[in-house]
Amino acid sequence: MTAKRPRRPPTASETARKEILDGAARLFMTHGYHATSVRTIGEELDIGQSSPYYHARNKSQILVDLNDEFMTRLVADFDAIANTDQPAISKLSAAIQELLRTMAEHQDIVAVVLQERRSLPPDAAEAVQRQRDHIDALLDGFITDGIAQGSFRELNVPLVRLALTGMTNWAVTWFRPNGDLGADEIADGFIDLLLRGMAA
Amino acid sequence: MTAKRPRRPPTASETARKEILDGAARLFMTHGYHATSVRTIGEELDIGQSSPYYHARNKSQILVDLNDEFMTRLVADFDAIANTDQPAISKLSAAIQELLRTMAEHQDIVAVVLQERRSLPPDAAEAVQRQRDHIDALLDGFITDGIAQGSFRELNVPLVRLALTGMTNWAVTWFRPNGDLGADEIADGFIDLLLRGMAA
Repeated sequence: MTAKRPRRPPTASETARKEILDGAARLFMTHGYHATSVRTIGEELDIGQSSPYYHARNKSQILVDLNDEFMTRLVADFDAIANTDQPAISKLSAAIQELLRTMAEHQDIVAVVLQERRSLPPDAAEAVQRQRDHIDALLDGFITDGIAQGSFRELNVPLVRLALTGMTNWAVTWFRPNGDLGADEIADGFIDLLLRGMAA
Repeated sequence: MTAKRPRRPPTASETARKEILDGAARLFMTHGYHATSVRTIGEELDIGQSSPYYHARNKSQILVDLNDEFMTRLVADFDAIANTDQPAISKLSAAIQELLRTMAEHQDIVAVVLQERRSLPPDAAEAVQRQRDHIDALLDGFITDGIAQGSFRELNVPLVRLALTGMTNWAVTWFRPNGDLGADEIADGFIDLLLRGMAA
């Protein structure tokens, strides 16, 4: 059963847009992108048939928008970390915290971004891949710089980065908002394990 | 285009059965379970309409069989590791090798087992969950015993196990059979990183 919400005025306001994207992410995560019809999105969110945003966008475009907004924000957050003048080991820790906090705050969206890659149209999939490559390159840079700065031993950089993103990405499958472990505790545990494992 | 294979005689032989399960896993991984019709499976595999196995099983049953066979084998392999009298640290390493080798050998099936959990009927989902819980309990035991045996420092056992399964499970998304890294090299890298991170 869906809680009825007051109908929004039929505008393309940012609020309505955000509500549609968040609601769609929730449905995509729960049922899968293919098993969710655009009609279900409309019914579930009780969107007036006159919502211009809803009308202008088909299901595929909603998935593209979800990915685009999320990845653009994540890239900006990673660039901000990279542009500080902390030592590389601190940037790596900040990156792990960022990944876990983002996942905890937007679990539905992160799940959809990670699990529905094959459902994206080719152009959008390519754009997301470029953003992922950018983030991977920043992570590789933090690890490489950390080796040069004497914080880490010689490591297979891509393999360590894949271990790191494996831990953090997989958390979307088991994290529970009201579970025993908060995002920061998980991040602390992962950072502790990784930094010791990587230590010079 | 699908390569034509010689039609099998319409028997429910193990060979035909395995071919259907493997082929279905490949299609489910590529297109997703929901986007794959049972008709596509039949056409893709060029299965004679008279195959009793194919007729007897609907798409959902194929997914259940894939999960059941895979998890039953994985549980047996983990039990075998647990029942050796190696120190816990060696059991943990053997478990990581087992997870990576299995993933490399049956990447399609592992991807489907990990990514199509919500597509399983409730009974089957529950059975798979019990098998996963069994494996998690064995991994937790290896870590706990390793602490007691002085190999590992005091650790948050479930969190370390979730880091470990995150690394290994996520590999199904990036592993390439002809890529730079083989399953054993990946396992060695992960074991090296984890055991140092966990060391007393």
